[in-house]
Amino acid sequence: MELNRVYNFSAGPSMLPVEVLEKAQKEFVVYKDSGMSVMEMSHRSKDYEEIIFGAEKTLRELMNVPDNYSILFLQGGGSTQFAMVPLNLMNKNKKADYVKTGQWAKKAIEEAQKYGTVNIVASSEDKMYSYIPKLDPATFSKDADYFYMTLNNTIYGTHIPDSKIPDTNGIPVVGDMSSNILAEKYDISKFGLIFAGAQKNLGPAGLTIAIVRNDLMGNAMDITPTMLKYDIHAKNQSLYNTPPTYSIYFAGLVFDWVKKMGGVEAMEKINKEKAAILYDFLDNSKLFKGTVVKEDRSLMNVPFVLPTEELNQKFIAEAKAKGFVNLKGHRTVGGMRASIYNAMPVEGVKALVEFMGKFEVENK
Amino acid sequence: MELNRVYNFSAGPSMLPVEVLEKAQKEFVVYKDSGMSVMEMSHRSKDYEEIIFGAEKTLRELMNVPDNYSILFLQGGGSTQFAMVPLNLMNKNKKADYVKTGQWAKKAIEEAQKYGTVNIVASSEDKMYSYIPKLDPATFSKDADYFYMTLNNTIYGTHIPDSKIPDTNGIPVVGDMSSNILAEKYDISKFGLIFAGAQKNLGPAGLTIAIVRNDLMGNAMDITPTMLKYDIHAKNQSLYNTPPTYSIYFAGLVFDWVKKMGGVEAMEKINKEKAAILYDFLDNSKLFKGTVVKEDRSLMNVPFVLPTEELNQKFIAEAKAKGFVNLKGHRTVGGMRASIYNAMPVEGVKALVEFMGKFEVENK
Repeated sequence: MELNRVYNFSAGPSMLPVEVLEKAQKEFVVYKDSGMSVMEMSHRSKDYEEIIFGAEKTLRELMNVPDNYSILFLQGGGSTQFAMVPLNLMNKNKKADYVKTGQWAKKAIEEAQKYGTVNIVASSEDKMYSYIPKLDPATFSKDADYFYMTLNNTIYGTHIPDSKIPDTNGIPVVGDMSSNILAEKYDISKFGLIFAGAQKNLGPAGLTIAIVRNDLMGNAMDITPTMLKYDIHAKNQSLYNTPPTYSIYFAGLVFDWVKKMGGVEAMEKINKEKAAILYDFLDNSKLFKGTVVKEDRSLMNVPFVLPTEELNQKFIAEAKAKGFVNLKGHRTVGGMRASIYNAMPVEGVKALVEFMGKFEVENK
Repeated sequence: MELNRVYNFSAGPSMLPVEVLEKAQKEFVVYKDSGMSVMEMSHRSKDYEEIIFGAEKTLRELMNVPDNYSILFLQGGGSTQFAMVPLNLMNKNKKADYVKTGQWAKKAIEEAQKYGTVNIVASSEDKMYSYIPKLDPATFSKDADYFYMTLNNTIYGTHIPDSKIPDTNGIPVVGDMSSNILAEKYDISKFGLIFAGAQKNLGPAGLTIAIVRNDLMGNAMDITPTMLKYDIHAKNQSLYNTPPTYSIYFAGLVFDWVKKMGGVEAMEKINKEKAAILYDFLDNSKLFKGTVVKEDRSLMNVPFVLPTEELNQKFIAEAKAKGFVNLKGHRTVGGMRASIYNAMPVEGVKALVEFMGKFEVENK
């Protein structure tokens, strides 16, 4: 860690790889021999086409995206996807199955209910979303237009790994991958559509990635705004209108960095190592306690609590003074949350755990 | 101009003030004493709130925005506004008046027609949008929910200055200010709503500004996606979900720069000076010719042609070699277009005109 940088455990926007930031800084005012900043480039220029199509190509390679899927660079975050998904896919029986594993799933459900019938096939609301409910295909709708799930729950710290994606008998699976894209491996061919806001593992807020199976596009409801139609963006290679050009450039640099690190498989290995350091500490601590059942623990977001609110506050304040920032938990869970996305180095987690150990000794 | 920078006449994304780029570059990896890049900041953090609320305050001051208007930082560009405007404002008689002055007005009309009745009160389509049609209040609908106009036509190089905003007898005027926001003065109180994509005069693509009179919000159609409701963003001070945080920061730096330059009035004066240099040359040239009627000429986008397509191509190529880039005109107008937004210095226009003079001598 550089002297003047902190370890930033923010849930998003969050830490970015420092070497990527430094590269972008270097070419910020003048990009290569273009005579201008990437921010000043026409999105229709040769220089910029190299950037956007290059980013798309690297992401396709990293996620092993099959040829019959389009990669789209969109705007509006996950919250816009909550509407785009039903507007575009609820087009046969106006019905969809949703798994309710947290606040983002809840928001997605509420938005979809504007446009059709939502069947909640499983929920963990009874225990404040501290586990992933059992997914039993026998309870799924036979005539749903799609099956929706949040793959990593940023707030509650649970995830559904690739091995637990259920067999939906051909019904397209939609996955919100906002907080674990490029951080653990998924087989894209199991999905009809995945989406992710960029601000956790990919780059600046304001860019949203969607990966959509081509046969699912082109049948949006008539009321769908043009900008909210997947097929419009697919046909125009994300250049229907001016895309968030700089954010795409920056995400492209992050894709290059992930590739250099060894790809998604290597990132997942490091992320498992980081998570294990933190969870092992929590499991052995007499003071700190994790809030999620063991088998459903997220690799990205680790919520934990101390015995009293006073201790929580004390911990957060002392941690901040030592350069471990944004550890305050979400208001619905309380306590603390350490978000340890791809860009958080192993040393950051080790340093945090060391600090937690000291805090435990001093406060037992 | 720095040695390795070009004069960039792109219609958008376009030139940014070099001193703003240099300031952003300096604090790119670590912002002040935050220990992180602005890109890595939680949008709920104190540091970031200072940035976004500071930007809002400066913009309010620069545009003299009355207290009963909200300034919103949105995503999706003008193309998303084409849907948001009818979805939010076509809520009484499902009817609106539109002025058709170019391709963007046309797209806005097509989008609004999905949601209600559009009355085209005036059009300049007959002469390839090379003038602003006469606006006669006697022809306006008495029961329109709003009256829509594009204030500067980026492609065709026309504009409707503040002095020509018609009296609509209380019907809210909606203005697309995408290519001349902060570049010429408008009295916001004449409008119900204005919007602008950032990528011409404000900053990076991916940020859209909307300024909306408060009484017009809160009655969107039921089918409106939550993210496309103005009131949701107003109530949450543009923090309903993660906004495009870095782009807002950068736009804030541009607002500070405009303020330092003397505000919108001073910018307009410089822009008139720049435009006059170019138009005077065109009016006196025997080879180059402007394509727009004198009284409707834009201060921002100056289209012009040479007598043959061969000469157009030759000019564009030779200009590029001299560091005057992105002068190719829109495919529907042909020839050339020089976009001279706020960040284009007077010297850039003078240098271009000097080059055009030489080209004329060599090719007469």
